[in-house]
This record gives sequence, structure tokens and C-alpha cells, in this order.
Amino acid sequence: MPGTPPTRFVYLGPEGTFAEQALRTVPAAERGTRTPARSVGEALDNVRAGEADAALVPLENSIGGAVGVTLDEMAEGDPLVITREVVLPVEFVLGARPGTALHDIRSVAAHPQASTQCRNWLRGHLPDATVVDVLSNGAAAGGAASGEYDAAICAPIGAARHRLAVLANKIADHPDAVTRFALVSRPGPPPPPTGDDLTSLAVYIAHDRVGALLSVLMELAVRGVNLTRIESRPTGEALGRYVFFLDCAGHVADVRLGEALQGLRRVCADVRFLGSYPRHRFGDGSGDRPVPAPAGLSDADYADAAAWLSRIRAGTLP
Amino acid sequence: MPGTPPTRFVYLGPEGTFAEQALRTVPAAERGTRTPARSVGEALDNVRAGEADAALVPLENSIGGAVGVTLDEMAEGDPLVITREVVLPVEFVLGARPGTALHDIRSVAAHPQASTQCRNWLRGHLPDATVVDVLSNGAAAGGAASGEYDAAICAPIGAARHRLAVLANKIADHPDAVTRFALVSRPGPPPPPTGDDLTSLAVYIAHDRVGALLSVLMELAVRGVNLTRIESRPTGEALGRYVFFLDCAGHVADVRLGEALQGLRRVCADVRFLGSYPRHRFGDGSGDRPVPAPAGLSDADYADAAAWLSRIRAGTLP
Amino acid sequence: MPGTPPTRFVYLGPEGTFAEQALRTVPAAERGTRTPARSVGEALDNVRAGEADAALVPLENSIGGAVGVTLDEMAEGDPLVITREVVLPVEFVLGARPGTALHDIRSVAAHPQASTQCRNWLRGHLPDATVVDVLSNGAAAGGAASGEYDAAICAPIGAARHRLAVLANKIADHPDAVTRFALVSRPGPPPPPTGDDLTSLAVYIAHDRVGALLSVLMELAVRGVNLTRIESRPTGEALGRYVFFLDCAGHVADVRLGEALQGLRRVCADVRFLGSYPRHRFGDGSGDRPVPAPAGLSDADYADAAAWLSRIRAGTLP
Amino acid sequence: MPGTPPTRFVYLGPEGTFAEQALRTVPAAERGTRTPARSVGEALDNVRAGEADAALVPLENSIGGAVGVTLDEMAEGDPLVITREVVLPVEFVLGARPGTALHDIRSVAAHPQASTQCRNWLRGHLPDATVVDVLSNGAAAGGAASGEYDAAICAPIGAARHRLAVLANKIADHPDAVTRFALVSRPGPPPPPTGDDLTSLAVYIAHDRVGALLSVLMELAVRGVNLTRIESRPTGEALGRYVFFLDCAGHVADVRLGEALQGLRRVCADVRFLGSYPRHRFGDGSGDRPVPAPAGLSDADYADAAAWLSRIRAGTLP
Repeated sequence: MPGTPPTRFVYLGPEGTFAEQALRTVPAAERGTRTPARSVGEALDNVRAGEADAALVPLENSIGGAVGVTLDEMAEGDPLVITREVVLPVEFVLGARPGTALHDIRSVAAHPQASTQCRNWLRGHLPDATVVDVLSNGAAAGGAASGEYDAAICAPIGAARHRLAVLANKIADHPDAVTRFALVSRPGPPPPPTGDDLTSLAVYIAHDRVGALLSVLMELAVRGVNLTRIESRPTGEALGRYVFFLDCAGHVADVRLGEALQGLRRVCADVRFLGSYPRHRFGDGSGDRPVPAPAGLSDADYADAAAWLSRIRAGTLP
Repeated sequence: MPGTPPTRFVYLGPEGTFAEQALRTVPAAERGTRTPARSVGEALDNVRAGEADAALVPLENSIGGAVGVTLDEMAEGDPLVITREVVLPVEFVLGARPGTALHDIRSVAAHPQASTQCRNWLRGHLPDATVVDVLSNGAAAGGAASGEYDAAICAPIGAARHRLAVLANKIADHPDAVTRFALVSRPGPPPPPTGDDLTSLAVYIAHDRVGALLSVLMELAVRGVNLTRIESRPTGEALGRYVFFLDCAGHVADVRLGEALQGLRRVCADVRFLGSYPRHRFGDGSGDRPVPAPAGLSDADYADAAAWLSRIRAGTLP
Repeated sequence: MPGTPPTRFVYLGPEGTFAEQALRTVPAAERGTRTPARSVGEALDNVRAGEADAALVPLENSIGGAVGVTLDEMAEGDPLVITREVVLPVEFVLGARPGTALHDIRSVAAHPQASTQCRNWLRGHLPDATVVDVLSNGAAAGGAASGEYDAAICAPIGAARHRLAVLANKIADHPDAVTRFALVSRPGPPPPPTGDDLTSLAVYIAHDRVGALLSVLMELAVRGVNLTRIESRPTGEALGRYVFFLDCAGHVADVRLGEALQGLRRVCADVRFLGSYPRHRFGDGSGDRPVPAPAGLSDADYADAAAWLSRIRAGTLP
Repeated sequence: MPGTPPTRFVYLGPEGTFAEQALRTVPAAERGTRTPARSVGEALDNVRAGEADAALVPLENSIGGAVGVTLDEMAEGDPLVITREVVLPVEFVLGARPGTALHDIRSVAAHPQASTQCRNWLRGHLPDATVVDVLSNGAAAGGAASGEYDAAICAPIGAARHRLAVLANKIADHPDAVTRFALVSRPGPPPPPTGDDLTSLAVYIAHDRVGALLSVLMELAVRGVNLTRIESRPTGEALGRYVFFLDCAGHVADVRLGEALQGLRRVCADVRFLGSYPRHRFGDGSGDRPVPAPAGLSDADYADAAAWLSRIRAGTLP
């Protein structure tokens, strides 16, 4: 029911991964139920079918490679909207059963992309250990807990859940890497604007028209709408048709973003609205800063211009 | 009083010039009073002061060079708006008192720019005649009628009014040259859209901003608004400030032109609306053809996009 | 002969107008011959025919309305190029025979556009005098000198030449108004770049293509080339074809302006080069300031990018 | 050694996946050695270290999610270039040991994203089978061959290599889905232009500048360079800096693409060239068609414009 806060949450499983950790930062999810799903598609289908109120899935992801899947799942089938983003630092730890020392470690379980991200650390600290591929960070932690492997590269939550000792913290090569998750619901009124919001769109254009993408960008630029992300993907359905995933600074309730959206609707083959939601801020207030509306593009400027036009049309200017 | 048809007309004099001829093509002017003015400024001031209802002045002019004056007068002082354009072929004739033969002609009176436009004809047909500069095409006809000169280059109406015989027709070097006049009134509701209208604007930008004009053009292009004319003029008031005179295809009542106008209002230092009015069509239906609205930019497309946005904002899509 | 400094100068007459005054600011003209021409067309034809080396004609002109004529004459016929611009303050004076007092003046001779420019002054100081139209500022001064009229509105040089006393200085309503003249020659190597130059172009585009002008502007903007002036004129030859007169900041020898010019050549129906020449500076150093090349668009940046591309093509990067 | 054809190939393993299948379409690889790597990073590092001549890795990938990894690996560390692309239809098969019938199947091994892609087929044909996640399509085939699972979703090459019977062909929900691979080498002269090539770039811009991406697109559009793909990724190094991966139609040896590249070099924070290579064509000649150069943008048009500019600069026009 629109307006009712979600209570039943689903997330990309298994337990003990970054997705669960991200979901735990959402207050309502702390009070509600949290169920792991086997895949992004399963998580979103649970929401579509009404079996869950919201799904927490990875959007922009340096580990796990789920981005494409999430985007494709959002762009097809029954519409869904993002109501919240969660940005989580990718802080890998090396976990092992209590009592294990670093020099005892012969085997390390890790998701292949997790071990890729910690390559330098592994070379420097465990040059002789065998890295064994497993299916998820959560499975790695579980394998270390069961004694199948000596240690695991996993999320802090995975170590905690499996009662592993943390032998090393923040072992990823890029200390600033983050993963971005989306909380996704069935369509409804977007959360109210906060003054620092993002709007996600899937925009379809015919790719064989020189300048088609330029037209899309001009619709945004003319209204001073900034892009924080753009990704093109070929549509599976037919050659010669591209879909662009755009994250725009602003909220659909903003006048200028609304006008830009209408412009895209008119000039593109199709546009799917994927949600307006507050931009993530870290606890310390850090994070990308919003770019202020360029001169002449605030809601007040829009209201002034609309009033001016009305007077011209009525012949009462000046 | 707004809505009352104009009855008192003023035009750039003297009598017997193309301006009078243009005014005679306006039905209401045929029924009203027609008074010549000494200058464009005087004609427009008569309208501003309420002494006349409308002024017929040259806008885009291959003879007489009055364009700049008209534009400047429209851009400054109390606002005025164009309610109609008249495009007149520049059909110079050689007029002389009845009985005069071409080989008798020793002197030809002409406005300097009229003689410039007929230079080839004069070289070919009257190589030995002296061309005498006079202040207007009307004065040339008058001088030939009074016997001061043997002949005059003038407008057909000038020959008729001074009872001159027309020795040669259409003697201008460019047979397709035209002059464009504007009928100008005090501000009021614009004439209703006809489906083929023009809108004139004076747009002020700071000239020292690279790309400022590009921004103006993008505001128009994004809404599919075509330009039929653009002219920059330095403003007299201060260096570093430019005014652009734009003629746009479309009517201020059109949704897309309205949106473009609001965009200009927001991004430019200033915008003055100079009128929306039907594009001139010649009696045979010839004239510039309107360019149809590009795909996605009709009023229906705008309405569809606005409805779509409303559903998104209300959370009722799909 | 290219490279030979001009010695024979022609200017838009008659004597005693602003054009002569402008020509006197050109050092070579002070040493050479200076002949008045009856019209802009005659002046330019003298240069084309080799009878003169250079012509001084008005380009951008708040009085006299000659702009259109000059532009059209430059755009058609055998090519000519501008080698120098002269910008002259429009400083009208009221001249009268010595001994005349202001309250004696009953008639004032003036070119119609000169009297238009001094309207406020005339209302305030000579409300009862009759203003008589004459053909040029020089003719006005001559008429006052001969006693035909009591006074004349004219250029300072006209008063001096006709030995008139100057009863009032700078009587134009806009004290900052200027007129811009061009010194025009047969094609040859342009004067060397000074670091603050202008380049004039006539650019032809098909007007019925939405966005054609935007394309022109983008060719310039992408290379950071600033426009100081733009004017559209319908071509006399055929409907549906427009010519734009552009003044661009920069010299044809600059890399970025050269690249932009080539871009225009490729995308436009036609481009005519009308000259690169130093921007006018007043004696006190005032005048429009050049806008510095945007980041990345200096000649050094171009050279760096060209070297980088060469290494990529050769496969020697890094 | 530049110019020497590669003989030692590495590919993203394990054996029996689509990457190996893609490599087998490269004639030189059929004659050379083919070694699987554990990760994209390992494959590329082998090339960087000179242990292999070329690596075949996924670029744009609906399965496996390796795109981000490949892009990041190409954008960082020592430069590498793409010399060839291979586009492979994603044709999943259901493989099982010979003698197995469809109704015998209780367990199916599959990479999670492979089972996601075949979800509809599985629902329709094996609604009661348990899908077991494994680490790769090759591992799935191996698991079915060893009897650990009853069947596997895998690539045709995986079924063949493990001597599985193919119970069903083309079971993916999107029959037209493809995966795009790149053959990557150390920098050297790019392969010669074929008339239908692509050029890949990594372009860095500051994300907090409204219009920065528009500037990038304008550099391309002005030279008529079409984009076939664009992807933004946040750089791990610092907030506020974005990298865009662009695939442009054309070859770095083309004049217009070269000019566009120089433009990007000048206006962007950084540009890394990632290779020019022939666009993939399927055996039947199908595939994306190249968009012809817009009017005025062929190499001949560029040569004409360059010659014209030279004549202007020399003063020998016309």
C-alpha cells in the first residue's frame, strides 16, 4: 500500500556479504524482516510479486559484477523504482578461526573479484598461500569457519557472522573503493526532495543517428541538470537500439528536472523513470557534494520566467 | 484600447515610397487614416504617445538602411510590438513626365541606395545620364514631376502618385530582392496563431562569455525552434554588452516557443518580446515555407510529456 | 603588388564626413592620396579595378545605414579583404558660421539619421528650429557654410573643413556611440597577427535546416573561438539561402581559428574569408578587451595534442 | 617486437568457457599457444610482463560481470591496446552425460548469471530441478561430466570439451544476446584501417563541471564521430573525478577521428588511447553497420578544407 513504510526486505544473498551489511544501515530494515535472495532477479521479482516490500541490490559495483544484471532487470518487466541509495566502503578483511596466525595460512577462500581487488596485499603478506575461488564473500567466510580453508577474504559482517578473528583490516588495494546499492520498491510517490537528490533513468535511443546522445545531453544541459553517471548498454531485443542509464542530480519534483524529463520523453524512443531519492551521505558528512543550480535555473527563476510568459501571452507586459 | 482595430496609421514618409505602398496592402489601413512621418523614431513615438494606433516601418531593408534605426527604437524606450509583417518586392521603375523618351534623359534623380541597386541597368541603358542623389524615392519622383530632373528611380506608387510615365519596370539588378516592413503597435494580446507565425525578440547577453550565443541557440534548438533571422548589435549604453535581434518561427502561444522563451529569460541578461505575428505570404501563396515541428515537439507531444511527468510525480505510473 | 604598402586611398564621400575623418587616422593614408567616392559600391569597385589600393567604408554603423551595402558588396563580386578596422566615436557637433549665436538659429541642416541621433539635444536646445534633411553630414556643413541654413549637425572634420564655429560638442544622445569602418584591399597575405585580432567571414547556410546555425556556432565554440558580431542577411539570389556575417576573435594564422575555419568550410554551403586584422584600440588603450584562449586551446596546447596523436598513430606511446 | 604477429595467447579461464570459444575464432590463436588465466588482471599482467603476446578478455558482457574489471585494468597500470574485437552470440546449451534424459534431471550446475539468463527456459522445462551455483560455465560442464550434477548450463565449447550430450540448444531467454571480447596487446602501431573500425578511449573529466560531458560529446559530434558505447565509472583514486569509456566509430588514422582525439586531449583532464581495430562482422556479414561520414566530413573534405585554408593564409585565394 503506497505510503506504508516497508517492513519485508529482501537482499542479494547469501548472508554475510556487503549487501546484507548495506541493508543493515537502513533503519526500517533493522526493524523489519531481512531475507537473502539467490540473485538480483529473484530479489526484484519478490518485490514485483508483492512477497517483499523492498529489495537491496548492488547498482554500481566494483566487486561482484552485478551492475549489468540490476540495470537490465530494472529496465525490463514491470516497473520498479529506487527509493534510497546506500554507498558502502569496500573494506575487505582477512578472517580466520580464532587462534590462527598469519604465517599458518596455506589456503585463502575468496570470490574471484575480491581476490583481484586484494592482489597487492596478498602478494605482500601471503605470497605462498593458495587462493581458492568461491561463489561469494559470504561463502568464503563460511568456508573458513568450517575449516575447509585456513582464511577468507570477506566483508566485516561476514567475519562477525561466522565468528572469525580479523587478522587484517582494509586489505583492498584501493582504500577509497565503494560499492553502491539501491533499495528498490514497486512504483509509488517518490520520497520528498531533500535538496540533494538523484534521479535515475533508462533512456532508449536509436544508436545509428549521429548526435542522438548529444541531443539527450543537450536536453539536460539546457536545464542545468548535471549527470553523475551514464552507462550505455545494447538492448538484448534488437540491434541498433541502445539504452542509456543516467543518474541525474536533482529530484523529479524540481521544476528544471521535470522539464528536462519531459524533453527526454519527447525526443527519445522511450524513457523509463527509475526513481528519485536522497544522495547518500556518509556518517561524517563526506560524499559527493551537490552542484548548485546554475544561475537562472532555480525553481524561483522558473517561476519568474513562467509569470513573465503569462504576461506576454495576455498582452499585459509591461 | 486593446482589442479595438487600429484606425490611425503612420508610416515612414514621405508619400510615394515603398513604405506607403506596403501600408496600402493592409486592409484596415485602407479604411483608416494614413499619415507620413519624417523618421522611424517619429513614427514609433507617435504610437507610443497614442497619437497613432499603428506604425508601418522598415525592418529588413535592402534600400534605405533603416533597419538599425528600427531595431534600436524597438529595443529602447517604452515597449512596442509587431503585429504584422509586410514583405514587398523591391520593384524599382524609371519614371518620367509623359512624353519623355529614354534617349532624352540627361539627369536621373534617385536615393543613393536605389541607384546602387540599379547600377547595372543604368550602365546598360543610360550610361551618359547624370545620377543626382536625393533624400528618398518619393523625393525623386517629385523632382521628376516638377521638371527639376528628367527622370526618377522610384517605387511604382511614387510614379502613380506623381503621374509619371513608367519608361522601364523592375530595373533593380536583383529581381528577387524584397523589403520587409513591420506594423507596430502598443503592447496588447498578440494576434491569434495561424500555424505559420514569427516571433521577434531582442536578447541581451554579455559578449565576453565564450559560448553565450551558443547557449541562446541551444535554448531554441532543444525546443526545435527555428531561427529565420539573427542580428547582433552593440548596445550604445555600454561596451561589452550585446543585443541580438532574433526572428523565430512560431507563435508565443505555442508550447515549445513559450518554453524556449522562458529559457532565454532565465539565461540571458535581458529579453524583450517584440511580437508574434503571421508570416507574410504573397498573393500567389509563395514565400518562405514554415518548417514543420520536428518529431516530438508538437503541442500534442508536449501535452503527452506533461501528463507523463504528472503521473511520475504522483507515483501512479504505470 | 602584394606587400607594397597602399598609397592610393578612396573613401565613402563626400568630403567632411566621418569616413574621411576615419581615414585620416590611418598613417599611410596621411602620406597617400585620398579620394571620395559617391557610394560604397563605387569605392570598392575602384579597388577591384586597381584604380585604388584601399577603400575606407563603413561596416557597422549607427548613422548612414551603409552596413548592409558594404556587407553585400563584400560578399559578392570579386573577393576583397579587410586589412584594418577603424572605430570612431560618433561625436556630432553643431556648426555655424562664426558670429552665429544659438538663439539666432532658425534652420538646422542634418542627415536624417544624424538628426535622429541628436533628437534629445535638439528638443532641449533648439525646440523651435526647423530641421532640414540633407544627404550627408558633409552636405549639411556645406549648406551652413554657404548660408543656405543657419547651422548644421556634422562631424568635427566637416566643421573644420567648412570653417564653421562649433557651437556645441558631442550633442548625440548616446555619448558612447561609435561607428566602425573597414579598410578594404584586394586579396593578399593578411597583416601579421598581433595577439588581438579579428577575422571576418561570410558564411552561407541553408535556412530551412533546423540547427544549421547551431552547427556553425558549435564549430566555433568547440575551438573556443569567440564571436564579436553576427548578422544574418537573406541572399538576394534565392529564397531559402542565408548568409551570415561573422566577426570572430582571432587571426587566420592561429591554429584554433584555422581549424574552426576548415570546419565551417566543410559543413556550410559556402564560406568567404573577408580578412584578418588587428582589433581597433583607442589612443588611450580603451576598447573591447580580447577574451583569452580558454584552457586547452592555445597554440601550444594544439601542438601538444598533435604530437600526442602522432605518437599514437606511430604506436610509440608511451 | 612490434610487427611480429602474436603467437602466445592467454585468455580468461577456465577452459571451456565463452572466452576460449571466442579466442578460437582468431586465426593466429589457432596456430599459437592458448593458456587460461585465473582472472582478467592476471591475463593482462601476463601481456604487460611479456609472458604472453595477447590476451582475450571480456569487454561488454551480459554474463560474468567482468566488464568493470577489464575497463579498470585497461585504464590503470602500463598502457595496453585492443587490436581486435570478437563478438560471440551467447548461446547457452544444456549439457549432460550421454544417456541422460530431460526428465531425469534433478540438479543443474550453472554460473549464477548464466542461470539468470536462462530463467524462463528453466521454469518451463525443468521447474523442479535444483539449480546449483558454480564459479564458471566451464566448472558447470566439468561438474556435470564428473557426475556431481545431473546437467550443466554451459557454452557449446564446454559441452564439447567435457563430452557432454547437448539436450537443448540456445536456451537463453534473449536469443540475440551477445558477449563482446577484446584481444589486447602491448602498445604498437594499430592494425590498418578497414573502413569499418572502432576506437576505444578512456577519458577523464572533472564531474562537478556542468556540461563537461557535453563538451566531450561536442568534440565528437562536430567531427561527425559516432559513439557506439559510453560508460562512466568513478575513479577509485579520488572522489570528483570520472572516467568515461568511449567506443567511437572510426580509426585513429582517419583525419576526423584524429582531430576529435586531439580535441579531447585538449579539453579533458586526461585521455588514454585504448586501440583502433576492425569492427566485428559475423560470418554471414551481419552485425552493426557503420554510419557513413556525414556530408563534409570525409578525408577528402578535410583535405579540401586544409588546402583552402593554406591559400587564405598565403593570400593566394582566389
